[in-house]
Amino acid sequence: MNIGWRIWLTKDETKIFGKGPKELLQRTEKMGSLRKAAMSMNMSYSKAWNLISNLEKSLGLKILDKTIGGVDGGSSKLTQEGKILIEKYEELEKKVEEAILKIFEETF
Amino acid sequence: MNIGWRIWLTKDETKIFGKGPKELLQRTEKMGSLRKAAMSMNMSYSKAWNLISNLEKSLGLKILDKTIGGVDGGSSKLTQEGKILIEKYEELEKKVEEAILKIFEETF
Repeated sequence: MNIGWRIWLTKDETKIFGKGPKELLQRTEKMGSLRKAAMSMNMSYSKAWNLISNLEKSLGLKILDKTIGGVDGGSSKLTQEGKILIEKYEELEKKVEEAILKIFEETF
Repeated sequence: MNIGWRIWLTKDETKIFGKGPKELLQRTEKMGSLRKAAMSMNMSYSKAWNLISNLEKSLGLKILDKTIGGVDGGSSKLTQEGKILIEKYEELEKKVEEAILKIFEETF
């Protein structure tokens, strides 16, 4: 027997960040484009846009620097705050995993 | 900002127990009937039966004592092992919640 788990961040009882949004931001940084990142995850651009917009509003921070227009139809990259969010979230994931596995071993 | 979480138990990468099955077992104990408990959760009896049967096979334990037939069409109550499973799982939930909240406070 083993244990499975999932965590997410909320604001006013609503999910604002988790595994999916993290993946979206990481792909956006790598591909330089929120649209391409969304497409690569079979997510509509409008859903991706809403997700990021919601996250930024909830945190009161700018997460993506978006350049509109240009040859490639605009580009996106993480702001410093966006990078810190991902770093902290991955630290959270790592520590939670360690704690959960330890508690599981102790309990079962 | 806050943190949300969910845990579950797995066997061979498959979910075998979690919040829903726990609720089902607790209602079964209270109502004396797996069928009534399933109905009260808008779950089909066959789904509830499969869930418990799967859990018992995965753990190699009997979780419910089922009496078939009789005036009320049979009854079900938790075995000692079933009671211990619920107790341990609730201990796990409590400890995981404490640990996650602590880690969240430390990280964000």
